[in-house]
Amino acid sequence: MTTYDDPATLTAAEARAVFRAGTERTTAGWAHGYTQTNLIAVPEEWAYDVLLFCQRNPQACPVLDVSDPGDPGTRLAEGADLRTDLPRYRIWQNGVLSGEVSDACGMWRSDMVAFSIGCSFTFESMLAAEGVPLRHIDQGRNVAMYVTDVECEPAGRLHGPMVVSLRWIPEERVGDAIRITRAMPSVHGAPVHVGDPRTLGIGDLDRPDFGDAVDAEPGDVPVFWACGVTPQAALMASRPPFAITHAPGHMFVSDRLDSEYRVD
Amino acid sequence: MTTYDDPATLTAAEARAVFRAGTERTTAGWAHGYTQTNLIAVPEEWAYDVLLFCQRNPQACPVLDVSDPGDPGTRLAEGADLRTDLPRYRIWQNGVLSGEVSDACGMWRSDMVAFSIGCSFTFESMLAAEGVPLRHIDQGRNVAMYVTDVECEPAGRLHGPMVVSLRWIPEERVGDAIRITRAMPSVHGAPVHVGDPRTLGIGDLDRPDFGDAVDAEPGDVPVFWACGVTPQAALMASRPPFAITHAPGHMFVSDRLDSEYRVD
Repeated sequence: MTTYDDPATLTAAEARAVFRAGTERTTAGWAHGYTQTNLIAVPEEWAYDVLLFCQRNPQACPVLDVSDPGDPGTRLAEGADLRTDLPRYRIWQNGVLSGEVSDACGMWRSDMVAFSIGCSFTFESMLAAEGVPLRHIDQGRNVAMYVTDVECEPAGRLHGPMVVSLRWIPEERVGDAIRITRAMPSVHGAPVHVGDPRTLGIGDLDRPDFGDAVDAEPGDVPVFWACGVTPQAALMASRPPFAITHAPGHMFVSDRLDSEYRVD
Repeated sequence: MTTYDDPATLTAAEARAVFRAGTERTTAGWAHGYTQTNLIAVPEEWAYDVLLFCQRNPQACPVLDVSDPGDPGTRLAEGADLRTDLPRYRIWQNGVLSGEVSDACGMWRSDMVAFSIGCSFTFESMLAAEGVPLRHIDQGRNVAMYVTDVECEPAGRLHGPMVVSLRWIPEERVGDAIRITRAMPSVHGAPVHVGDPRTLGIGDLDRPDFGDAVDAEPGDVPVFWACGVTPQAALMASRPPFAITHAPGHMFVSDRLDSEYRVD
């Protein structure tokens, strides 16, 4: 079993081994420099709707890989197993969360198609590299996520609201945060909103729908990015018979490097 | 009927009206600043394979829009009709080109799903804006396209080689051409190769597989970009029962602006 002092210094393969062995921890800050992804796996019969929903909502749902039916592997990491290598999974039946597990092998059907979707943790490493502070990391919390009143573009049987992640950014660094993230369109790209959360229909920042509330520092501005939890909100709204996702903040750690997703 | 002196000065809607009325011309240089797209339409039963093929080969096949089954419209242009608004179409049966038409209404099936795919004409306007010469435009020709020996990542029943477009670029402007196009990942992005065409398995630049041979100027270097004709090569290799595409160089002129697809 992999042992470690600082999860940030693990390789992606080492992090996956830790989670495969049963550790359940949010992956924020783990395996620095490696790209983390959101997971949504559905029966093949729903795969086109999911893929089209992602195509039509690329800022929230940038697809980095799609598995072949029944294949628990991914092109994003040689030898990885999407059924075991995430720290925690959510099981969905008819759009209702029916449970969380740390190993999805028992629930994985032979016709499952797994979508790996870009995650804002990727651009966080780029923000950190330029000295933009990340309050949730400093506070040891999961990022805060909110369901908005912005409807995604529907696709077939899938519809639902956009989910966003919040980062408190010092006012004088907001321009940098926009510049850095807009150069990474395959991991959510530029913020969808800066400032008043009510514009997105968010009432109370202290009560996120997913993740943890995060404290602002004086002079911080709320900055919102489209979030890879959006497909989970679509599951809740659209009620496919069965799906498996990551638990929010408990991502797949791939072998891809964050820097591979920069275009500037 | 729309009349015009210079096709570059037409709006996208005016250009579509010209083609809808029956004009068959390559769209290179038309409706300056408006994004042009490749078309591939297949029966719904093949749509997932096409969408997945595009997802797995995003540099060659960047998807800008996908229609709902049977809908000849597109989100890229209000009121447009993909069956009539391109200057020329190709009809494919079992992977064999069975004919070209200027109006696809008679061939359009009620279960057709239309994919609009990014086109290198989009980044050409950005190259031109920075003074990078475009030899094929200057010579009044269609861009030269070649089938390579690079296999695309297969998806379901779809497989085939990557097709590239060639532009002769003055050696001292190659760096600019790379910088400008890599900032446009949704319209093919950076070149896939600069220099020796044999690296891509291209034997003779004077004999393109699609489009026209284009003459180099002294000091020019051959620069190759992944090309939206790649899905047509996949049709030829994979033989789905039926498909409709644009004829190479005869694109759909959308209402989107080229500048919308820049990320820098």
